[in-house]
Amino acid sequence: MLIVMESTAGQEQVEAVVKQIEKLGLRAHPIPGAQRVAIGITGNRGSVDSGTVEAMPGVAEVIRVSNPYKLVSREARPEDTVVSVGGVSVGGTAIVVIGGPCAVESREQLRAVAEGVRDAGGHILRGGAFKPRTSPYAFQGLGERGLHILAEAGREFGLPVVTEAVDEESLALVAQYADAIQIGARNMQNFSLLRSAGKLRKPVLLKRGMSATLEEFLLSAEYILSEGNYEVMLCERGIRTYSDYTRNTLDLSVVPAIKRISHLPILVDPSHGTGKRAKVLPMSRAGIAVGADGIIVEVHHKPDEALSDGPQSILPVDFARLVKDVEAIATVLGRPLHAAVAAVNSVAAGAK
Amino acid sequence: MLIVMESTAGQEQVEAVVKQIEKLGLRAHPIPGAQRVAIGITGNRGSVDSGTVEAMPGVAEVIRVSNPYKLVSREARPEDTVVSVGGVSVGGTAIVVIGGPCAVESREQLRAVAEGVRDAGGHILRGGAFKPRTSPYAFQGLGERGLHILAEAGREFGLPVVTEAVDEESLALVAQYADAIQIGARNMQNFSLLRSAGKLRKPVLLKRGMSATLEEFLLSAEYILSEGNYEVMLCERGIRTYSDYTRNTLDLSVVPAIKRISHLPILVDPSHGTGKRAKVLPMSRAGIAVGADGIIVEVHHKPDEALSDGPQSILPVDFARLVKDVEAIATVLGRPLHAAVAAVNSVAAGAK
Amino acid sequence: MLIVMESTAGQEQVEAVVKQIEKLGLRAHPIPGAQRVAIGITGNRGSVDSGTVEAMPGVAEVIRVSNPYKLVSREARPEDTVVSVGGVSVGGTAIVVIGGPCAVESREQLRAVAEGVRDAGGHILRGGAFKPRTSPYAFQGLGERGLHILAEAGREFGLPVVTEAVDEESLALVAQYADAIQIGARNMQNFSLLRSAGKLRKPVLLKRGMSATLEEFLLSAEYILSEGNYEVMLCERGIRTYSDYTRNTLDLSVVPAIKRISHLPILVDPSHGTGKRAKVLPMSRAGIAVGADGIIVEVHHKPDEALSDGPQSILPVDFARLVKDVEAIATVLGRPLHAAVAAVNSVAAGAK
Amino acid sequence: MLIVMESTAGQEQVEAVVKQIEKLGLRAHPIPGAQRVAIGITGNRGSVDSGTVEAMPGVAEVIRVSNPYKLVSREARPEDTVVSVGGVSVGGTAIVVIGGPCAVESREQLRAVAEGVRDAGGHILRGGAFKPRTSPYAFQGLGERGLHILAEAGREFGLPVVTEAVDEESLALVAQYADAIQIGARNMQNFSLLRSAGKLRKPVLLKRGMSATLEEFLLSAEYILSEGNYEVMLCERGIRTYSDYTRNTLDLSVVPAIKRISHLPILVDPSHGTGKRAKVLPMSRAGIAVGADGIIVEVHHKPDEALSDGPQSILPVDFARLVKDVEAIATVLGRPLHAAVAAVNSVAAGAK
Repeated sequence: MLIVMESTAGQEQVEAVVKQIEKLGLRAHPIPGAQRVAIGITGNRGSVDSGTVEAMPGVAEVIRVSNPYKLVSREARPEDTVVSVGGVSVGGTAIVVIGGPCAVESREQLRAVAEGVRDAGGHILRGGAFKPRTSPYAFQGLGERGLHILAEAGREFGLPVVTEAVDEESLALVAQYADAIQIGARNMQNFSLLRSAGKLRKPVLLKRGMSATLEEFLLSAEYILSEGNYEVMLCERGIRTYSDYTRNTLDLSVVPAIKRISHLPILVDPSHGTGKRAKVLPMSRAGIAVGADGIIVEVHHKPDEALSDGPQSILPVDFARLVKDVEAIATVLGRPLHAAVAAVNSVAAGAK
Repeated sequence: MLIVMESTAGQEQVEAVVKQIEKLGLRAHPIPGAQRVAIGITGNRGSVDSGTVEAMPGVAEVIRVSNPYKLVSREARPEDTVVSVGGVSVGGTAIVVIGGPCAVESREQLRAVAEGVRDAGGHILRGGAFKPRTSPYAFQGLGERGLHILAEAGREFGLPVVTEAVDEESLALVAQYADAIQIGARNMQNFSLLRSAGKLRKPVLLKRGMSATLEEFLLSAEYILSEGNYEVMLCERGIRTYSDYTRNTLDLSVVPAIKRISHLPILVDPSHGTGKRAKVLPMSRAGIAVGADGIIVEVHHKPDEALSDGPQSILPVDFARLVKDVEAIATVLGRPLHAAVAAVNSVAAGAK
Repeated sequence: MLIVMESTAGQEQVEAVVKQIEKLGLRAHPIPGAQRVAIGITGNRGSVDSGTVEAMPGVAEVIRVSNPYKLVSREARPEDTVVSVGGVSVGGTAIVVIGGPCAVESREQLRAVAEGVRDAGGHILRGGAFKPRTSPYAFQGLGERGLHILAEAGREFGLPVVTEAVDEESLALVAQYADAIQIGARNMQNFSLLRSAGKLRKPVLLKRGMSATLEEFLLSAEYILSEGNYEVMLCERGIRTYSDYTRNTLDLSVVPAIKRISHLPILVDPSHGTGKRAKVLPMSRAGIAVGADGIIVEVHHKPDEALSDGPQSILPVDFARLVKDVEAIATVLGRPLHAAVAAVNSVAAGAK
Repeated sequence: MLIVMESTAGQEQVEAVVKQIEKLGLRAHPIPGAQRVAIGITGNRGSVDSGTVEAMPGVAEVIRVSNPYKLVSREARPEDTVVSVGGVSVGGTAIVVIGGPCAVESREQLRAVAEGVRDAGGHILRGGAFKPRTSPYAFQGLGERGLHILAEAGREFGLPVVTEAVDEESLALVAQYADAIQIGARNMQNFSLLRSAGKLRKPVLLKRGMSATLEEFLLSAEYILSEGNYEVMLCERGIRTYSDYTRNTLDLSVVPAIKRISHLPILVDPSHGTGKRAKVLPMSRAGIAVGADGIIVEVHHKPDEALSDGPQSILPVDFARLVKDVEAIATVLGRPLHAAVAAVNSVAAGAK
């Protein structure tokens, strides 16, 4: 259920409605918009008597939401959500480019890549410290030491950082070191992890599961929002099909589909989406052309020595070309590239 | 097997090699390139003694082709193939846009749409007269009367025309009326039809089957080339996946994959690829951004009254916007939009 | 639209209704059942005034069929269709087993395999003379010579024969030599071929397309029935999925789904369905356990020398075990194995 | 790496090898077989000098395992693993049938269903207390209270119980109350949860992920074994395909594929695999016919009132028929149905 307040409704009227909702044993989620406030209601398992709320002062309308998602939908919030990742706005008009290695391997590696990302005009640094690997015998990441290296490089090169959490323990650590928390494709329906991430007040980058429908994807985001964390960025990273010349099939038509239904930012990951270095640049261009809010891409200064995902990583010099192309395509759509990141603006600066 | 001639080899040397190959019971396919001539050999089921050919004057190299496709591969022809559809070049640097209704319904309908396509800057007119329909009870097209209407509109508005053939009978008719023959997704592995189209000397627009791998797609094109018709254009039109918010999943990463392996032009069909009007424009932009040579799109002046595929057809006014966007994206890649078609340049002009 | 006649309606009443329907510009398809006759109507593109028919003597009910298939549906014919293939009943209580090589290669090969099939208790002999091959350079079958060899072996070992037609030309030949015509997965939506097969009065074995939905599959059968040929057998042969340890994914749950909606027999092809010899036996058992009317399987006396599909062919000795297992499983479901074929009962006996 | 001991090797020789392996910084997993002991080695990221071990007394062979899985493979353990779930053997010759509601809803509901399961000859009781639901607003299970009800019913009706854990917290609780821990499809690549389950000494029922390849499935099991818990049962529950008339496509050919590669038991879940009540019985028969070690199926005494998955639950009376059919099919394969469970033999008896 969704309550739309009048545009003239004051803060105290919003609070009164919230209080009334909570008295009914439900949770209220005020969602401020440009024109008016909407209040999402969650926790109602069955029927709720909307009468008492409908009559309250300041209430314009009570909408019985028939589709399964509430807080992620444009009905709940017509304006685009803009998420701030350490000062970089994701989801506004400006396009962002996120780059970095699949896995943090060493201080030297990360400094080399981070410098390349910054010099090329990239906005956010990525790099995994906890790697969900198919095999228990594959390199699983450096753990907290990797987070430390990542945060340090972020500070040095003035780039906010995003990195993946795979369970409760790593989530707590990632929240401490990073500007945004990534939840990977394999954990898209790890509902406990989603709820925990929803209790934090840190942006979350949620990747689409390998065979997730649009509805499942948005409902996983809904798990995070329903716990009160509205700073969610979605990310298309390829789905599993019979098609065999790319690692996954990058499903770009999900971008306009999401834009229509949801107010959340949507990024495209052409590295995992194709698994092939040579396809990263063209699919990045296509991702922006279709309307994504940004690109997240794997960059490595020595791809052939990478401990994971080498074949899909590009060199810093190619990343520079990618940023230029992305900017040119964005211009066609009337969107600017996000301004270059200033010196030390990362929340990570505060982390140890 | 592939024979690469020296760049200095004369016409008579090429002919001598061809004769020698035919004497061995095989078929020779001379493929002229910018620098040199290559000669593809087909028909060898087992091992062939390459010695006799290797020693002939003008022969630079004999390559045993290990991958399954020969004539469609870049090894056989490094330069891009440029197909001329009634004077419009497909596969060169210039981008082409093909528009028209799913099915030819009446003279009035087709004239209205053709005028819109021409005014918007479209280059080729499409429209089905023979429709492969899932149900035997659905509208199956106007048949030869539809071809007549199509060719007439092509002449009137100076647009070459492309239309689908579904069997031997319609193939003969389409070859008579149209500038290019479309073979649809459902017939991509109708090998008899492919062979017959290969015996014609008319460009063929071959659509990817609904669950075709890249190899199957290229081998179907190989069927056409192996009969001597080298004027083949490929077209990605969406594959079947579990994903349910679009009719098919437009697999744009096939574009760079094909460009790398094959010299044939590749177009993108966002109408069938998404099945949704609102996604045609963004996916057209993405198709060009990823490197396609053109877009083929369904246009209808009254989509809601269309006898087939109404929900995925766009209005002429939206088509005009699409042509503009496509041109702007092409510019980013350093490619121009194809010049507007001059008055009556269609081969169809000659047809009755 | 479907007209259900009263159980007491006489032949002349049925004929009068048929005449009336044809007067309305439609086609009538009388479908005799155990209790009563139903008359399917095809050809109505829009609304038809059912009033005139409804009032005729002998008419019990006029049903507006809302689902897309008419003649293939159980609403049109509640009783199971039993197709006679050269005297072997397919679709009754008895289970049939069809065996033979992927391709007819030589008289010696076919005699060896046919003998094995007959001795093991198989009921129908299969073998391709026209092979739809992905590559134009692969073995395409022996053509009419193959048909001749097949019919000859059928006569010699008293087995009716089924073989594939791939176009108009081969269809005419196959109809002449074989007891049943196979239409393969790649041609499931070759609607011209389906219509042509519908005009013959020979049983048709229609294989499910590689990515066909249940509705598409049944509508392709509907194409055949709508031309007047009601002797159609369906065949599940695996669908294309991401799953990679079998060539296709044999979708056995389609069997009960078809049984519920349609009266047509449904067979299972575990050879193409798995592409692996070792999985043919267990998947044959599973096919019968799930309710299929029979199994069609590739048998070769020298699989490693087979010109096509060797890795999925089983030896005659394994085929014998398969027939035994199939019978045992069938018994659990209360179904017998079809009686062994008597000497020379094949229609093929009459050919050429 | 895998060390195969001589059949005559004594316990102290095995222990000496284990000690030597641990000295090299690796983990040793002795796997006792009928004839001899094998020792799996995990933890080696790169190359290991096998020389020191190879020369030790009692060592027959050192095998460099090239395929990605070690402990789950038949190379490591040729004999079938038999897992004891509260006294019921899963993976031996005898077939087991597991039944129960999707979710534990109340004491009354569970008692009714458990009685039905026991009376029908079922061996293990299932029922979810922690439900991973696509939507945050769907019924999420009764939590610990549900476990309590489940264990109680297990004791009352003499059935061991299996139930799902979705995170660390629920895992600890489930381990306390249940005889086996289920890890669901959505958590198949929740590697942290797999590791934690691997540290317990309780049987684990691991379901295949919705789009998991065979390799990914087995590697997820490998995560559990590599932590020392060898009591793993696999379960096929349908994969996601384009096919739309069942909820998922039950991929039965995975059963023989797994049997060939791995020694772990494999069950089939036709309830989730089809999502349709009417297909549960035929697909159960097919599952046993193809070689599965058992069936796990959803049973509800009032399916239409079920809080989750009602449409795929069958009545106790249908479950009784299913057990009979399963037994009959098993007999064909020379396998008995597991003996009926005796009174109070559940480990759960000790819990609470």
